[in-house]
Amino acid sequence: MFDKILLVHGSGGQLSHELVEHLFLKYFDNPILARMDDAAVIGETRFFGKNLVSGKLAFTTDSYVVSPIFFPGGDIGKLAVCGTVNDLAMSGATPLYLSTGFILEEGLELADLERVVASMAATAQAAGVQIVTGDTKVVDHGKADKLFINTAGIGMVPVGVEPGSDQAQPGDVVILSGTVGDHGMTIMSQREGLRFDSPLVSDCAPLSGLVATMLDALSSLSTPLSSPKAIHCLRDPTRGGLATALNEVAGKSRVGIEIEEHAVPVRDAVRAACELLGLDPLYVANEGKLVAFVAPAAADAVLATMRTHEYGREATIIGQVMAEHAGRVVLRTAMGARRILDMLVGEQLPRIC
Amino acid sequence: MFDKILLVHGSGGQLSHELVEHLFLKYFDNPILARMDDAAVIGETRFFGKNLVSGKLAFTTDSYVVSPIFFPGGDIGKLAVCGTVNDLAMSGATPLYLSTGFILEEGLELADLERVVASMAATAQAAGVQIVTGDTKVVDHGKADKLFINTAGIGMVPVGVEPGSDQAQPGDVVILSGTVGDHGMTIMSQREGLRFDSPLVSDCAPLSGLVATMLDALSSLSTPLSSPKAIHCLRDPTRGGLATALNEVAGKSRVGIEIEEHAVPVRDAVRAACELLGLDPLYVANEGKLVAFVAPAAADAVLATMRTHEYGREATIIGQVMAEHAGRVVLRTAMGARRILDMLVGEQLPRIC
Repeated sequence: MFDKILLVHGSGGQLSHELVEHLFLKYFDNPILARMDDAAVIGETRFFGKNLVSGKLAFTTDSYVVSPIFFPGGDIGKLAVCGTVNDLAMSGATPLYLSTGFILEEGLELADLERVVASMAATAQAAGVQIVTGDTKVVDHGKADKLFINTAGIGMVPVGVEPGSDQAQPGDVVILSGTVGDHGMTIMSQREGLRFDSPLVSDCAPLSGLVATMLDALSSLSTPLSSPKAIHCLRDPTRGGLATALNEVAGKSRVGIEIEEHAVPVRDAVRAACELLGLDPLYVANEGKLVAFVAPAAADAVLATMRTHEYGREATIIGQVMAEHAGRVVLRTAMGARRILDMLVGEQLPRIC
Repeated sequence: MFDKILLVHGSGGQLSHELVEHLFLKYFDNPILARMDDAAVIGETRFFGKNLVSGKLAFTTDSYVVSPIFFPGGDIGKLAVCGTVNDLAMSGATPLYLSTGFILEEGLELADLERVVASMAATAQAAGVQIVTGDTKVVDHGKADKLFINTAGIGMVPVGVEPGSDQAQPGDVVILSGTVGDHGMTIMSQREGLRFDSPLVSDCAPLSGLVATMLDALSSLSTPLSSPKAIHCLRDPTRGGLATALNEVAGKSRVGIEIEEHAVPVRDAVRAACELLGLDPLYVANEGKLVAFVAPAAADAVLATMRTHEYGREATIIGQVMAEHAGRVVLRTAMGARRILDMLVGEQLPRIC
């Protein structure tokens, strides 16, 4: 630990985890928080939606501080809705309600705020959630950076759906919903003023529909191995990228994960930008991608279903779970060599979300 | 409307309301948000707590940007728990779960963060809520001010409890739980370096226990007029103070409210600080007070019960609701004169919570 907060503490990497463990978990000590999944799933409550479907309550929050606030493919408002909707969706929940808290810097253009708010409203509608409560604070010029947005979300996890970061099992197939690195490299190229032949566009998107499609497909199959329970774990690889998400799952599920490097899709422009800036696309943030750990008997059905959905068209199998080298992620290179894909200690990209 | 965000937009006064109405309500258009109460009460869901008690779901959020972050009587962490717990309690809900989102400025002392986190944990325990999910972001030095905290909260409103800002009725007795202005003047005196004979201490406190005591007392009485439904409206007068809270209730309930100026308790040190700075204590923020609108038949029982509780010892009747001058708050001075107590247009105190 350091004695001051550094930018790396917000990176999603090793130092972020240490801060959470040594500080937040130490004081906010309860079994629900201790699971440290993308959303808290509160098993001791039962929650009925308006259609009188029963399930468990899922609850999550994220603050958004991305700079710049507008970027190709999205803006801080779209991101604030997608990020929280996606955290709910990764817990298997149907997202229902969002709260939103704005921290505005004195001098922010009202037109910019209106554009962000309109974008949040459109994204919420697309994701099927309602923004039902909110708050606005204003701080003096120079005490924030244009605007920060917090969203918290409530969803319902239907009975029989139980994905979790600690649920991956040896033999599971690892499916990625599309290309990696698009969001992070879009933000970086905006900040650095980089231009490429093909434009970089953030993948920012609400994934609740994709997850619902995957769960529905398994519900409708007749084999016992193909129930929604065959989806053992869902993660959206945001801060810290795919490599960090995989490391978290390997650690919590106490399994090994082997990934084929050449199987992970990366757009040419993203690869070019990464090479220019000396970054590894596997560690770059995504905002509209998920990785699913699926029982082998259900993997083909899940993959085929994902490819029918707008946000899963490029879904592909990237690896598998094994009992060996538990807690580790191993990358098999095109040459057949194996190397450990560690969690990063330091910061790749500040203020990416 | 202006074309840039000004500090007054965060004041809780007239311009805050216009921003909410012309921007947030315009885009986030749904009947739950449109009620604009301290918490969203979601009537179309049913929610079972761990004791299998059924009720409606309450959901709320606030961001906290108070400066300084430590002050007599509390700190930004205690405030972040109390503020959200109190918003839930004012909807009649039993607060259950909180989320917390931290935005940290690079360079923040870890010791300060730990002190804040420990304070949040202690306050959550005192209020009977669990912090079950969270998020941390770090922004560059100079792009925030030490730390900002967002909390969102979930609670359950028991069946038969239905207070709302639009529920005050002519004849209702207006009960205030204690002195006004303590929190706001404590923050201001810290910022201005003022000293008084008796120290100023923030009233920051979780009010869920006080509200539970009030509701329980009415449940146990035998007369039909004394059910929990006799509490028509509960408000915690935070930003904008008592005057703003009363104006909101008068407007939404379409009633007049008459307050006896001499009946509103104000500590000597608060009065002295207000006089020095040219402020009216009726417009100064409180963080551990509530105002209740109660059917006359139940008022004595509610008042007596409040006085048995640690946070209601100085509870007192300050006025009544009437059909006349609907939408207005009228102050009767010690001399017997009447004056309209308007909502403020401008900012009294920035970054008070």
